Amino acid sequence: MRRGICARLEKVYLIESNLSFYKGASVSLTNDRESIFSDRISDVPRSFIREILKVAIDPSIISFAGGLPNRELFPVEEIKRAAMKVLEADGKNALQYSNSEGFIELREYISDRYRRKQGIEIPVENILITNGSQQGLDLLSKVILNEHDCVVVEEPGYLGALQTFAVYRSKLVPVPVTESGMDVDSLKHAIRQNSVKLIYTVPNFQNPSGITYSQVNREKIAELVKGTNILLVQDDPYGELRYEGKDKESFKALIPENTVLLGSFSKTVSPGIRIGWIVLPSFLVEKMVIAKQASDLHTSNFSQRILHRYLTDNDLDKHVSKIRDVYDRQRIAMLESIERHFPGGVKTTRPEGGMFLWVMLPNETPAMGLFHEAIKKKVAFVPGDPFYVNKKDVNTLRLNFSCVGEQTIETGIRKLGEVINERAGV
Amino acid sequence: MRRGICARLEKVYLIESNLSFYKGASVSLTNDRESIFSDRISDVPRSFIREILKVAIDPSIISFAGGLPNRELFPVEEIKRAAMKVLEADGKNALQYSNSEGFIELREYISDRYRRKQGIEIPVENILITNGSQQGLDLLSKVILNEHDCVVVEEPGYLGALQTFAVYRSKLVPVPVTESGMDVDSLKHAIRQNSVKLIYTVPNFQNPSGITYSQVNREKIAELVKGTNILLVQDDPYGELRYEGKDKESFKALIPENTVLLGSFSKTVSPGIRIGWIVLPSFLVEKMVIAKQASDLHTSNFSQRILHRYLTDNDLDKHVSKIRDVYDRQRIAMLESIERHFPGGVKTTRPEGGMFLWVMLPNETPAMGLFHEAIKKKVAFVPGDPFYVNKKDVNTLRLNFSCVGEQTIETGIRKLGEVINERAGV
Repeated sequence: MRRGICARLEKVYLIESNLSFYKGASVSLTNDRESIFSDRISDVPRSFIREILKVAIDPSIISFAGGLPNRELFPVEEIKRAAMKVLEADGKNALQYSNSEGFIELREYISDRYRRKQGIEIPVENILITNGSQQGLDLLSKVILNEHDCVVVEEPGYLGALQTFAVYRSKLVPVPVTESGMDVDSLKHAIRQNSVKLIYTVPNFQNPSGITYSQVNREKIAELVKGTNILLVQDDPYGELRYEGKDKESFKALIPENTVLLGSFSKTVSPGIRIGWIVLPSFLVEKMVIAKQASDLHTSNFSQRILHRYLTDNDLDKHVSKIRDVYDRQRIAMLESIERHFPGGVKTTRPEGGMFLWVMLPNETPAMGLFHEAIKKKVAFVPGDPFYVNKKDVNTLRLNFSCVGEQTIETGIRKLGEVINERAGV
Repeated sequence: MRRGICARLEKVYLIESNLSFYKGASVSLTNDRESIFSDRISDVPRSFIREILKVAIDPSIISFAGGLPNRELFPVEEIKRAAMKVLEADGKNALQYSNSEGFIELREYISDRYRRKQGIEIPVENILITNGSQQGLDLLSKVILNEHDCVVVEEPGYLGALQTFAVYRSKLVPVPVTESGMDVDSLKHAIRQNSVKLIYTVPNFQNPSGITYSQVNREKIAELVKGTNILLVQDDPYGELRYEGKDKESFKALIPENTVLLGSFSKTVSPGIRIGWIVLPSFLVEKMVIAKQASDLHTSNFSQRILHRYLTDNDLDKHVSKIRDVYDRQRIAMLESIERHFPGGVKTTRPEGGMFLWVMLPNETPAMGLFHEAIKKKVAFVPGDPFYVNKKDVNTLRLNFSCVGEQTIETGIRKLGEVINERAGV
């Protein structure tokens, strides 16, 4: 049952797809009609991943393609109590317009949590509430990116970020990520060759690769950025979902003046409530508030207050540890099944947290071909191709373990192992 | 009490202000740091209205400056029941990620309401859910506006729209609005002189003027637009709040291929829940969904489902008629007080609906000077200046009547009349 639901609600599918529906609806356009579109939106490529994942919607398919949190772990009852309390105590305020920066008490909670969990002091006025961290990326792009400005992105990298930077017509400079982080020599080269304005990173349990930047890697990157005008975005949706190893230092501690943090309650509480935040150096705050006002005035005041009530009345650490237990068991199950069923030539990352692991196929086997074979055996994953800026027919793929039970993981990985064996000829 | 709350929560203040806070927070920037900003955000002028309205926050001031719905009318108890029901029946889905187009059942409700109330057939797939209609404007601008593209705006016009178009660096072409609508000769001239891509209108009970486009005016505008590639935006936040006269035809009925409708539940149910929608011609849908995905993935699924439950379980017409009764009484009170207390040379509009009326002072008296005098007597309003694209020291001002009780209206208008008498020398 659970895997059926996950297959039907793919996060990647959600970001990259659900447009096929409109094919029938769109009227045949004259050239004139097409010419109404802005350059920025005309540039965004039609994603092919939606076409691929359409076939994975079949509920009989075991899907490792998703990117959703496990819905069985949502604190439904607690949110219900929080909603009742907010509407009883303060309903009129919760339903009225609010300020663009976000609900002050929620921002205080976030500031306080940075202090307690990471030992970082972040003044409340440097935190703005956004509709998930995706909006943080959009607003930041709006405020700093001119056409053709250079943005360093991880390769492979997060699809939602690649899409947003494409909308703002920036020049994407991909830098490879390795097991220990962003390749420093490539980054140095990228900075030397280009006037880089922004570096986008997911240093903890990266999507899609699952890797974590080492302490040394962070320090080297910080050294390159320090004293420059480059902004480094640390997107950290999975940071609290660590299953082994120790937390590494935040870029905010290493290079506070250059760092923008993106955070989200999507992986710890609920993605549907759509609340994230952005931590800004002071000089960016005023312009970002203007951008937020002009974009949608403010984030749902109703959702913010209910989330804040939930956070105040419950122990988030305890809840997160419940999520960690489940995901960790599934991660271990996947790693063990891979050990058992994948041929020797296959390499995978061993993520210390998050929701994904990354597979490198032997003999340059294209993951795309493998995908079509796997679907025939009722197993789905995301081929690596869309996570690269300019590469095609790559031999890498992403597996999700947050949405699939341990038994199902064993079955799915066994089948996938068979397909790899046939296809990769090992 | 009520006026205190309204004074503290000015909608205009909210859109245009609350940045003063950051003055202390912003570090002194080197020129290098300033150079990081994009051209689009550097262009957006610092609004002076926030400075003006700061003085109006004093709760002892009678404020006609607001733009908020009256919080006493929010259906708090009904929303609470809806929230409980959603979380009990379907909590896991309400808290999970959702699709970018919006909750299908809410879009069906909207489509159905257009059919019932306005006799317009709008397929569900042409309706997208947004974070209030402000986001509809932002997404549409993202999808169609290149730098320097021409946008016709009403003068005086809605501040939030002017701000969004400024962010996209469009060329604003102001066309005056008269008692009967947008001045057709000026519009004709604007279209002839410029390659106009977009016309932005609020044809029903316009903000700030309170005027409504007549049927004839709509037909003439439609004639100018028909068969061209110009898009006409009909922003309609107040459409359901009519107190006298008869509904006029929607542009969607007159020129369906050219019309984009913006709608919102902010004035009928709750603004804090932040849910609006956009009705698009089919050829725009796919690109708008991409823009929505890249902006924030989707609107709060939690809020959408609760709002939908509320709408399904309650009679919105009945609720709206309650709002209409209160606002209409306050409108009449304001018109009668004006009749009693304002000197003869003052002209005002007589809005048939909405939340605002517009005052034209005699003898070219600048409204800005009047504002400072009025504040001394503890009465606030919004001087006309910010509602114009390039005019200053105008003799017009906006009065809000949705947030102030009848007794208070009489007191406030009497005081305002005294100030006008002194100042305008009539």
